[in-house]
Amino acid sequence: MSPKITTELLKQLRQVMKSPKYVQEPVQAYIVPSGDAHQSEYIAPCDCRRAFISGFDGSAGTAIITEQHAAMWTDGRYFLQAAHQMDNNWTLMKMGLKDTPTQEDWLVSVLPEGSKVGVDPFIIPADQWKRMSKALRSAGHDLVPVKENLIDKIWTDCPQRPCKPLITLDLSYTGVSWRDKIVALRSKMAERKVLWFVVTALDEVAWLFNLRGSDVEYNPVVFAYAVIGMNTIRLFIDGDRMMDPAVREHLQLDSTLEPEFKIQVMPYGSILSELQAIGAGLSPKEKVWLSDKASYALTEAIPKAYRYLTPYTPICIAKAVKNASETEGMRRAHVPKGTVTEIIAADKAEEFRSQQKDFVELSFATISSTGPNGAIIHYKPVPETNRTLSVNEIFLLDSGAQYKDGTTDVTRTMHFGTPSAYEKECFTYVLKGHIAVSAAIFPNGTKGHLLDSFARSALWDCGLDYLHGTGHGVGSFLNVHEGPCGISYKTFADEPLEAGMIVSDEPGYYEDGSFGIRIENVVLVIPAETKYNFKNRGSLTFEPLTLVPIQTKMIDVNLLTEKECNWVNDYHRKCREVIGAELERQGRHEALRWLIQETEPLIRVQ
Amino acid sequence: MSPKITTELLKQLRQVMKSPKYVQEPVQAYIVPSGDAHQSEYIAPCDCRRAFISGFDGSAGTAIITEQHAAMWTDGRYFLQAAHQMDNNWTLMKMGLKDTPTQEDWLVSVLPEGSKVGVDPFIIPADQWKRMSKALRSAGHDLVPVKENLIDKIWTDCPQRPCKPLITLDLSYTGVSWRDKIVALRSKMAERKVLWFVVTALDEVAWLFNLRGSDVEYNPVVFAYAVIGMNTIRLFIDGDRMMDPAVREHLQLDSTLEPEFKIQVMPYGSILSELQAIGAGLSPKEKVWLSDKASYALTEAIPKAYRYLTPYTPICIAKAVKNASETEGMRRAHVPKGTVTEIIAADKAEEFRSQQKDFVELSFATISSTGPNGAIIHYKPVPETNRTLSVNEIFLLDSGAQYKDGTTDVTRTMHFGTPSAYEKECFTYVLKGHIAVSAAIFPNGTKGHLLDSFARSALWDCGLDYLHGTGHGVGSFLNVHEGPCGISYKTFADEPLEAGMIVSDEPGYYEDGSFGIRIENVVLVIPAETKYNFKNRGSLTFEPLTLVPIQTKMIDVNLLTEKECNWVNDYHRKCREVIGAELERQGRHEALRWLIQETEPLIRVQ
Repeated sequence: MSPKITTELLKQLRQVMKSPKYVQEPVQAYIVPSGDAHQSEYIAPCDCRRAFISGFDGSAGTAIITEQHAAMWTDGRYFLQAAHQMDNNWTLMKMGLKDTPTQEDWLVSVLPEGSKVGVDPFIIPADQWKRMSKALRSAGHDLVPVKENLIDKIWTDCPQRPCKPLITLDLSYTGVSWRDKIVALRSKMAERKVLWFVVTALDEVAWLFNLRGSDVEYNPVVFAYAVIGMNTIRLFIDGDRMMDPAVREHLQLDSTLEPEFKIQVMPYGSILSELQAIGAGLSPKEKVWLSDKASYALTEAIPKAYRYLTPYTPICIAKAVKNASETEGMRRAHVPKGTVTEIIAADKAEEFRSQQKDFVELSFATISSTGPNGAIIHYKPVPETNRTLSVNEIFLLDSGAQYKDGTTDVTRTMHFGTPSAYEKECFTYVLKGHIAVSAAIFPNGTKGHLLDSFARSALWDCGLDYLHGTGHGVGSFLNVHEGPCGISYKTFADEPLEAGMIVSDEPGYYEDGSFGIRIENVVLVIPAETKYNFKNRGSLTFEPLTLVPIQTKMIDVNLLTEKECNWVNDYHRKCREVIGAELERQGRHEALRWLIQETEPLIRVQ
Repeated sequence: MSPKITTELLKQLRQVMKSPKYVQEPVQAYIVPSGDAHQSEYIAPCDCRRAFISGFDGSAGTAIITEQHAAMWTDGRYFLQAAHQMDNNWTLMKMGLKDTPTQEDWLVSVLPEGSKVGVDPFIIPADQWKRMSKALRSAGHDLVPVKENLIDKIWTDCPQRPCKPLITLDLSYTGVSWRDKIVALRSKMAERKVLWFVVTALDEVAWLFNLRGSDVEYNPVVFAYAVIGMNTIRLFIDGDRMMDPAVREHLQLDSTLEPEFKIQVMPYGSILSELQAIGAGLSPKEKVWLSDKASYALTEAIPKAYRYLTPYTPICIAKAVKNASETEGMRRAHVPKGTVTEIIAADKAEEFRSQQKDFVELSFATISSTGPNGAIIHYKPVPETNRTLSVNEIFLLDSGAQYKDGTTDVTRTMHFGTPSAYEKECFTYVLKGHIAVSAAIFPNGTKGHLLDSFARSALWDCGLDYLHGTGHGVGSFLNVHEGPCGISYKTFADEPLEAGMIVSDEPGYYEDGSFGIRIENVVLVIPAETKYNFKNRGSLTFEPLTLVPIQTKMIDVNLLTEKECNWVNDYHRKCREVIGAELERQGRHEALRWLIQETEPLIRVQ
């Protein structure tokens, strides 16, 4: 990895920051956030503006360029990578360290009095705008929206915004038609007394209309907005995708429909002017519902008195709770793949996955790492670091895929030779943590963060820990990371767990320079049977959807309790039954033999 | 309990709300919060204004009176009590229920356009003022500070503000002199570049000067403020308490001292004008440090640009981490009391406590409850509800005291006859939870909320739970509830645990109409020895300071693991050793026999 030379680019950017062609008044600083106009976690190449201007292409980071300085804020996962990828025009601001200034504090310290700080109002979420604008104003500066994105002005070979064909999902996959979803949404709107609902997150648009796409790698979404009124539906989407007869039929564009279900298709770029028109026509007490993470540009289109902002939209909540068709699909999607450099192993995993029914694409870049590379939590093999799998090192494979019936994400850690006692000890603690979460029983409405320590307790007893959360929400043929639930020591963005939600359970342990261990299943929240049932509040637990053997060679059986040992044996019995039957059906006898061998029951000596 | 008749009082209040004698302009609503000018949890009788106007005397509640309405917001602990104590002039607003409006929303719904809402600026914390003021302003109303407290105007027999003698604590109790505490505080001030620090919480003033008092029941504090400059110390305190030679010597008021340690004693009531004078004399970049919970009145005395507000003051943090003298004192303070109606038991407990060395007063009202009364978490026996202890019902005793060397808080649950299998089952789950927290090992810097589920796991497995947090911070001869740490599913006000902090460990189970179970020890955070020590991050665990037998008759030994059984036996061995020696020294042979009998080891059948 050699750094990107950015001297010329920064010079050009500083010119457009002063050019009356692009800015009403010169801006003394320009902010380049990570995201796109939909606040997506994964973004399309045309939205990688921060990577373009700086060279740093990690998933999180904010660049700020002033006349004299260029600075990049990122977190602990990326300190090393950002330092490698950026040249010395850039100052790395290590977030989370005590002496690192916030973006606001740094701006105030370097800017001349009465400065203007510019940002693309489509890229910055409204809540961030508010915070930053306030801090700058109190120091005598102004945050100003710059309508033309200034990076785009100097990015001569910027790729086009993707506009890939759509996939329509029928009732057998989704369980609920888009019409019924609109009806449910309108009833939530009526409850809250709002007249309009603006859908800005890409996975929420996809979910609402039972559409999928491939505009963003790994995430089966499509660039679109929607505005739902009590009697109107407007879908903002580009390209000739709407000419596809399957799509026209799915959305009933050519049918005679009740007017309140008639979808008006409009250009993607017209969302702002349409919202402004709606905003201008509102009477007192008429409200428009937006996520408080929607872009500043769209939020501003609605006068303040008419906005109804919430951190979670009703679509976000409804999407998280999977219905019977979706959970059935998720179950089907969770078939295992067969078992070499790291890259070959990753490619092989993809090849096996792609042979399965309903395969669409991977759900994230496969993490295939051996030995010390396993300790790099967000490792992705590239030719320079590619190691050969060996019988002396632990191999970690974290992979997943998008199928039409579900999204998968599984991690297994294995050894092809003889693991050391220490490796087995650590693996077994991680397994105990995995089981503690998977088998946990808890009252209905418990928030995921209250389960996080169960995953760590066995590690903690010996003075070990891992520095990431234990689980994230998983979409249904949607984003592999989705809100609003999860299992983490971090307590933000954590809505109560309820039956039908799907999360990952993935504790780990990472020994720098030596190995990485992670055991990850995707698990479904289901009702549990308990003796006293929390006075009818209801009991919950998890059902593993992932059915892939956990390498018994890595387990120190003597460290397991009887209950834990039974859990492993029950899990492996289920793997044999469900996956064995499928392998037999597919005639994959070698894989079947491997499955039988890997699921032999553990025997615990008392 | 019959309701207080408030018709006449409300009429009088509504008159003063319009009287030019007390308000510059009439106010259409008046807010009466719970607290005093120091945002104390426990308050003096003269500050019980909300109880006076409404009759409702629970620890949490806010009254709002308009020309037409009188409404009271309180939480689930008090729904029943508030409904009993208030007459039908009042509307009870049940906080936490979905349909209950917030105070702001309710005000907006009932007030005529352009109303003024009054509140005593000394009673409302600055952060609450800000939130409420903003909400009212956006609806066209104004929150206005009313300098004269309007309740005091109609409260003809209002008790005087207490002004009790002071207790000085020498180095053997505090470990650090007040001079050294001032030096440490000034170094924190220099770090943050602030020139002044305003101490507003009563326990923070008491801790800083190594003084105690008894102005507030159960809390050994004194009405006072302090303002610390880099070269000055101002203590705002009333009465002839400063004439006490012991106090004068302790504070070195008559000694020739370096000027920066000379304490200027000023009247309690002059704090506002002194702060205003400081505020008026500040130059740019000179800052004044206040808690964001300080009153609106004091916060406003410092112009906005000069304020430095934090949620926790450095005194709050320093106070939470006990030094060697304080932990030694806490250990000494934790001697047990011997073992009738509930009230007699409570009185007896107090009598035994008061015979111990260094006893000052109780640390809270003793909870002595038998049978169904035990299920009322905040139960306090009064003649109408007083039940006779019997051999058929579970008895719960939660009591504590203030000693010069420490503050105690202990709960034990016992049965004087034969407990039912269900009672034993529930007790044993609670015990398992108590042990899970007490024996937990966790990395240095873990927040208490991450341990809360350990206390619930055994109950959860059977579908049982309890609806309160698991632990609170405990002061050192200070408030029995103190911040900034605790163990709760609620995640606010939760600073990381570190060695020297002291919290309670008190899981419980409450069966409405039948019984209550709680097992509470005060525990000290101490370093733990672990195999791998979190890569030198450090390991922590708890040491029980409370040494009182846990009734073995209530334990179903077969539900305990071997490790849990050993914990109980080790704990009881320590009780025998430490408390047995003390009882022997005091010549209390009957108690000693009881102790030996109650600490017989459990035997677990494999």
